[in-house]
Amino acid sequence: MNDEALKYAERLVPHSYIELARQARRSNEQEIRLILEHKKIPEQPLEENLIEQWLNEIAQMDSNNFKGNIGVGEREGRIYSSLVARRHSLLSHGIGRSGDIIATQPKAAGSSLLNKLTNELVLDAIHILGLRTVTHALVIPMATGMTMTLCLLTLKKQRPNSRYVLWSRIDQKSCFKSILTANLEPIIIEQIENNNYLQTNIDEFEKQIQQLNPNDICCIISTTSCFAPRAIDNIQSLSNLCKTYSIPHLINNAYGLQSTKIIHEIEQVKRSNGRIDYIVQSTDKNFLVPVGGSIVLTYNSQLFDQLSHAYPGRASITPTTDMFITLLSMGKKGLLDLIEQRKRLFNLFYEKLSQWAKDNNECIISSKQFSPISIAITLKNLLNKDVTELGSMLFTRRISGARVVKLGTKQTIDKYEFINYGAHSSTIQYSYLTIAAAIGIEENDIEIFMKKFDDVYQKLRRNATSDN
Amino acid sequence: MNDEALKYAERLVPHSYIELARQARRSNEQEIRLILEHKKIPEQPLEENLIEQWLNEIAQMDSNNFKGNIGVGEREGRIYSSLVARRHSLLSHGIGRSGDIIATQPKAAGSSLLNKLTNELVLDAIHILGLRTVTHALVIPMATGMTMTLCLLTLKKQRPNSRYVLWSRIDQKSCFKSILTANLEPIIIEQIENNNYLQTNIDEFEKQIQQLNPNDICCIISTTSCFAPRAIDNIQSLSNLCKTYSIPHLINNAYGLQSTKIIHEIEQVKRSNGRIDYIVQSTDKNFLVPVGGSIVLTYNSQLFDQLSHAYPGRASITPTTDMFITLLSMGKKGLLDLIEQRKRLFNLFYEKLSQWAKDNNECIISSKQFSPISIAITLKNLLNKDVTELGSMLFTRRISGARVVKLGTKQTIDKYEFINYGAHSSTIQYSYLTIAAAIGIEENDIEIFMKKFDDVYQKLRRNATSDN
Amino acid sequence: MNDEALKYAERLVPHSYIELARQARRSNEQEIRLILEHKKIPEQPLEENLIEQWLNEIAQMDSNNFKGNIGVGEREGRIYSSLVARRHSLLSHGIGRSGDIIATQPKAAGSSLLNKLTNELVLDAIHILGLRTVTHALVIPMATGMTMTLCLLTLKKQRPNSRYVLWSRIDQKSCFKSILTANLEPIIIEQIENNNYLQTNIDEFEKQIQQLNPNDICCIISTTSCFAPRAIDNIQSLSNLCKTYSIPHLINNAYGLQSTKIIHEIEQVKRSNGRIDYIVQSTDKNFLVPVGGSIVLTYNSQLFDQLSHAYPGRASITPTTDMFITLLSMGKKGLLDLIEQRKRLFNLFYEKLSQWAKDNNECIISSKQFSPISIAITLKNLLNKDVTELGSMLFTRRISGARVVKLGTKQTIDKYEFINYGAHSSTIQYSYLTIAAAIGIEENDIEIFMKKFDDVYQKLRRNATSDN
Amino acid sequence: MNDEALKYAERLVPHSYIELARQARRSNEQEIRLILEHKKIPEQPLEENLIEQWLNEIAQMDSNNFKGNIGVGEREGRIYSSLVARRHSLLSHGIGRSGDIIATQPKAAGSSLLNKLTNELVLDAIHILGLRTVTHALVIPMATGMTMTLCLLTLKKQRPNSRYVLWSRIDQKSCFKSILTANLEPIIIEQIENNNYLQTNIDEFEKQIQQLNPNDICCIISTTSCFAPRAIDNIQSLSNLCKTYSIPHLINNAYGLQSTKIIHEIEQVKRSNGRIDYIVQSTDKNFLVPVGGSIVLTYNSQLFDQLSHAYPGRASITPTTDMFITLLSMGKKGLLDLIEQRKRLFNLFYEKLSQWAKDNNECIISSKQFSPISIAITLKNLLNKDVTELGSMLFTRRISGARVVKLGTKQTIDKYEFINYGAHSSTIQYSYLTIAAAIGIEENDIEIFMKKFDDVYQKLRRNATSDN
Repeated sequence: MNDEALKYAERLVPHSYIELARQARRSNEQEIRLILEHKKIPEQPLEENLIEQWLNEIAQMDSNNFKGNIGVGEREGRIYSSLVARRHSLLSHGIGRSGDIIATQPKAAGSSLLNKLTNELVLDAIHILGLRTVTHALVIPMATGMTMTLCLLTLKKQRPNSRYVLWSRIDQKSCFKSILTANLEPIIIEQIENNNYLQTNIDEFEKQIQQLNPNDICCIISTTSCFAPRAIDNIQSLSNLCKTYSIPHLINNAYGLQSTKIIHEIEQVKRSNGRIDYIVQSTDKNFLVPVGGSIVLTYNSQLFDQLSHAYPGRASITPTTDMFITLLSMGKKGLLDLIEQRKRLFNLFYEKLSQWAKDNNECIISSKQFSPISIAITLKNLLNKDVTELGSMLFTRRISGARVVKLGTKQTIDKYEFINYGAHSSTIQYSYLTIAAAIGIEENDIEIFMKKFDDVYQKLRRNATSDN
Repeated sequence: MNDEALKYAERLVPHSYIELARQARRSNEQEIRLILEHKKIPEQPLEENLIEQWLNEIAQMDSNNFKGNIGVGEREGRIYSSLVARRHSLLSHGIGRSGDIIATQPKAAGSSLLNKLTNELVLDAIHILGLRTVTHALVIPMATGMTMTLCLLTLKKQRPNSRYVLWSRIDQKSCFKSILTANLEPIIIEQIENNNYLQTNIDEFEKQIQQLNPNDICCIISTTSCFAPRAIDNIQSLSNLCKTYSIPHLINNAYGLQSTKIIHEIEQVKRSNGRIDYIVQSTDKNFLVPVGGSIVLTYNSQLFDQLSHAYPGRASITPTTDMFITLLSMGKKGLLDLIEQRKRLFNLFYEKLSQWAKDNNECIISSKQFSPISIAITLKNLLNKDVTELGSMLFTRRISGARVVKLGTKQTIDKYEFINYGAHSSTIQYSYLTIAAAIGIEENDIEIFMKKFDDVYQKLRRNATSDN
Repeated sequence: MNDEALKYAERLVPHSYIELARQARRSNEQEIRLILEHKKIPEQPLEENLIEQWLNEIAQMDSNNFKGNIGVGEREGRIYSSLVARRHSLLSHGIGRSGDIIATQPKAAGSSLLNKLTNELVLDAIHILGLRTVTHALVIPMATGMTMTLCLLTLKKQRPNSRYVLWSRIDQKSCFKSILTANLEPIIIEQIENNNYLQTNIDEFEKQIQQLNPNDICCIISTTSCFAPRAIDNIQSLSNLCKTYSIPHLINNAYGLQSTKIIHEIEQVKRSNGRIDYIVQSTDKNFLVPVGGSIVLTYNSQLFDQLSHAYPGRASITPTTDMFITLLSMGKKGLLDLIEQRKRLFNLFYEKLSQWAKDNNECIISSKQFSPISIAITLKNLLNKDVTELGSMLFTRRISGARVVKLGTKQTIDKYEFINYGAHSSTIQYSYLTIAAAIGIEENDIEIFMKKFDDVYQKLRRNATSDN
Repeated sequence: MNDEALKYAERLVPHSYIELARQARRSNEQEIRLILEHKKIPEQPLEENLIEQWLNEIAQMDSNNFKGNIGVGEREGRIYSSLVARRHSLLSHGIGRSGDIIATQPKAAGSSLLNKLTNELVLDAIHILGLRTVTHALVIPMATGMTMTLCLLTLKKQRPNSRYVLWSRIDQKSCFKSILTANLEPIIIEQIENNNYLQTNIDEFEKQIQQLNPNDICCIISTTSCFAPRAIDNIQSLSNLCKTYSIPHLINNAYGLQSTKIIHEIEQVKRSNGRIDYIVQSTDKNFLVPVGGSIVLTYNSQLFDQLSHAYPGRASITPTTDMFITLLSMGKKGLLDLIEQRKRLFNLFYEKLSQWAKDNNECIISSKQFSPISIAITLKNLLNKDVTELGSMLFTRRISGARVVKLGTKQTIDKYEFINYGAHSSTIQYSYLTIAAAIGIEENDIEIFMKKFDDVYQKLRRNATSDN
């Protein structure tokens, strides 16, 4: 209803009541106007129905939703199923155009607006989280692995003669495969054990750079978010190497945005002039949306343009819409509360597990400081065969995400072989269990986990005792 | 409500009424069982609410929706916004795992089932549409351009020493860019004009193959769906070349599934033993879903596995879910009706434009046979400056998708320069307009188009006359 | 987004694209403005998403949806379940206030507007359907029976000394019970058989009026929509009696709005100056919404006010909202199409049954003219015990709504006894089946019915033959 | 998916993953089975999506949702608008049949089940809230006023010669009008002032009973939930009178279920053998659903049957569905938490206002004990003209529900005149403000209210001062 319509409404309902409604409406419009003006997440959460209404308004700006639109092209945003249409809030045109993922589509002003605005809001979220020097954020509707591949392809295009990627071992298949899919050759740098946790082998990196021609190296991939006992890579030293030898630096920060420690590390690198080209992170792991998107950050327009131009053709707007809704639903306050709560619960989880380890003659084998999201605890009192059983017993008791790493697991990916796969290291000495206090975890989860884990552990430990 | 619950319901409502409801329910369950058993699209459409309910049941099979599930991993499918959760029917885990896009996820039996089943239903749809010899279909949650890149990367991995892609010119940026993004080198083969439409230059293809070492060629890309006057590539001859010289053949069939002619051409190639490796098509352009997915078809398990293994990490389930809903909503009948109707309306559109052309001293410059989706019509009576104006006038009159191609447009993509960009040919002689009768078009659209187009044309033609 | 917000949007997306969207938006706003201005149903259907968005805007005008509203009353429109809130589009305050169902609520400008506007749109629908002289329409959130009671209570309040209601027998329990619930005393006037169908016994009405004191009669209830062979009451003569003796006339027109014949009859009465006080009809039976509302029509402001003032307290807005959505979804065109189609299908059904009757030695026992919605057909060739069986066999074959009337059924309601209950007459001679061609029926329904009915009938008839 | 379907699913996804899903599903089915078996609200809240799915399953049990159902009746549950259908979860048939609101409908097993079950769940909620001796609960899809009328009509039918209703004055129009609408004659018994609050004038009640013939009295209406300074009626003494003189007793308990004090009073009456026939309460005011329904409680099957039989015809199922969803969403725990929190916040509000009153030389004029939901505070330091202004200033500051009662307001309803309308008493001495701490209020609401109220009050008080 526009102003004129509201005037006719006053013939049906007294002016003073309509006036109050008009004021309430203006507050809402004002809020939306401010978001568009400043391109910043509002302080407080926006009501869900207000977000939904705004989204509908945006969808109305796309030509497929124009009354009387006649489509004689090959792609006119028609949607067969009304259920599908509703799931997508009538947004049908996706994002991107002719090989530029941030290009606006003449047919789809609304989708284009949503895409541009969301990238800005994501950038604001990134600043709020502490990466204040980042200048560009891009939501890519592909998960982190494929986005890593896209970044690698983009870097490779700038360095057409390069072949190698120096990679600090992290036992996530998708990270490793992102290199292979880009048809580049990974040079695997094993972690070194340092004081009970795993650490980047900087010397080996430098050695490799010197052995290979730096120009033959497409980039270095470091990883900040990882499962204990693997620690945050020493990105300070790596980025110095990158700078020194003019090698691009791609950070796999999959779920690192949720950790103030990781954020701090990255921010420090940048402030001390280390080299970072792209930082890739997952939307789902950091912002509690369904799997499907990632965010690439850069500090440089040219890198940003190269990446956005690299994406061929159109792409789904869904991850963008999910981020739009979620950031507005959180507000700045909600986002910071989540971060705060995760940190608090990580500490709580760490304490509880430490106490439990002490009571049961096991040890925490991860650094509280350098492994700020997950915790690894030995299972040395269990029979080796029971270690896998423990994982499966937890799973059938509806504990998901607890990972058991068993000594001696081998894994071959393509032609590459890994010893102790899952442990990020060829040299671990114990089987262990890793758990994470990831964003969204609740205190109750930790309590129930501790109880169920202890039950299962004690049951299996009795096996070990009786076997002796 | 399980059977036991229904028994308690009979304490509240008479047995005979419950019994009738039970029978109705059994019919529904039966229908779903049959789909799962035969992995085929039902003959008749499924009711939307039945689909929605099934989808909810599937979502309940994912661990994030288990009552009492405790998540201690780094990605537990938590969704912050309930609006986002509803948009995704509570599906959060995406598809794929550790670098295999069809791998099942232990945490997400429902999503895994949905993914597998939908690929089967898509394969059935492909068979229904006439590609009866295809053996594998894979929904990829990326649009056609990026999926072409993924296919190219997969092919390149098998032919690590290859560098070139032989490409029959088609002026769609995303197709061309998919080659560049894969860091391969396109060899552009211009179309030849044949009897008023553009045709594949087979001789030039063979010449290039012979000049370059066939082993240096990663693949040939042909295009079947394209804007008139560009015609379907001569895929018969191309696939023979591919066979002769052992070169992979990738078909860009972006919106070709909607045309029985194109389907027929592809099927013929296969039946006559030509070589086809991957056929890539859009979900949105062929099945009326929002932009975001594509379908890759192959005739070979190994090629299928290579592709599915190439995808690094997880991916959005949204395009899959959209296809699932849409295919069930259509039923076999609805799908064939759409195809039938499109064909009929294409013929109608062709007739109307032919008549109009005759009346206005313009000509149709596309082959009805080899350009079965779109039609090109000259604009030779307009001033060159008015040609662009015509496009923009149509657009502001809410005609979307009509493309004006103006003589002499130059375009540079990377280092490659194209003459008469948009016309798929360096040698066209007239500016022209292309329109399409794509799937979902209605008779009314054609009538309104004819009227509005004529209005605008006559207005501009008067300019031309008065200028003389 | 207000104009200012759109201006900021132009910093993100080119002005010309936003401008096109703005125009499309203006068309939509214009459409809504026109509806509010003229208070008439639009010619063409409104898109569902536009209706939904408008409804959301209206809901935003209620104080429970104001940002920052503080409620310190006893009823503040809070909704516990977000699922419930969504079902109601966030509308919570209902309609009516302090004993006037059309009073506006200061707290709920939106709900009040929706209520007023919908009553106007319903009035427009009534005019479109042909009751052009009606001046007031009121949607009451109670089904017809209870609304009949409310009308009776309202009439009784004006005639405090009256006790009787003269009632032309119609075997619908809720109509009869509406009199008993109002604590009035029904005088049952039996139908007379006339030329194979049942007709109002006008003489008996007049006799009763003269026997009782006219002032002791609260009102006459006539029924226009009924199951064959009961015909439309002779409302012309009844309304003349009402006029002559100054007795109010309440028409039970439950599902009569769908019949052009019934509409015509009522309109004729009014044009010839007969007396009609209130006409009551169902929203669900005439407008294809869920059960829950009715519409009261009057020709007189005073009667309208007396009724709206009679309703004590607040009431559900749901039936109003359903009507609002439905009328806008239909548009004038959709509404008239439905009426047209029903008439056509009634005629088709009549023909098919006539032919069937001829073939099977049964007869149609209803007047095509005076029973314009339903058709009665004898079952004289079946054993009496099989007549009930036929009803139940149809029902288990998913034929709902076919009513079997068996000779000799007795029914007592309160202290009143009815012979041949269901047949509207103590004197019928055959068991029979009644079916209706009600609004929304489809040709396919009729075909399947004819087939299934014939199957069942022949099966049972064989029983009759073999029994002999 | 039934068991058989799940077996086919195991061909697509490993058995062990499906098995885990099957277990999770069984837990959910179990939960629903238990609710149907015990007809009790679950201890813990049910997930919204589980409720929605159950509701869909129930809707599938209605014939309008049967696949292949053919409707040849006059009301077949067809829904025109899919938006309307979704709002109603596809439930279309309403509740009740032929003049019995709890009768099951053969066509609508699902709706019938939902209706019966919800009445049982509501009864359980009533028991949980403390009315443990109540034996029957009935959700009526009309708000309290109209339901009071229905109760009165039902009582009147049993006492056909009665005319009067003895009514303890409460200035809610809908309560008073419910008597007039039933065409009964109210005898207004004024409150007496007792120790600063208003109390039932028992002596006057008895005097009236004796003056009128008890058989001429249809019933006594007492009110338990009311705005301060009106207190809970002395229902103990009234129910004793009712017992002594064999007069029915109808309790207007509109929003009394939320108060443990009121619950306690009613329960005491019953335990001490006082007479209560029907207790009427609002669904929206007590259970945070939209306006539209009420609950009638009785202790006696016959009274229950008389009421359910009195309702003529069908009725909306919406209020029932809202209650179903809400009670399952709350769980027993959620319901009790709400009650607990309201009580706590009432006490807090009382304290804050007492302190404020002391600071500002005003007084609380309601009993904390006998007015357990609302609080009245004098405005004696304001000019009389500013008292209304205060109400309106609060309203424009988005404080809703604060009622200003101004000395000397007269109101006529029908032929009855009330002095000091709004104050429940002809003899109040001060203008005052009433506010409530109703269910769902939050601490933050109270704080903001106190601040805004004080601002407005001080502003107006300065007027008073400056005027002097």
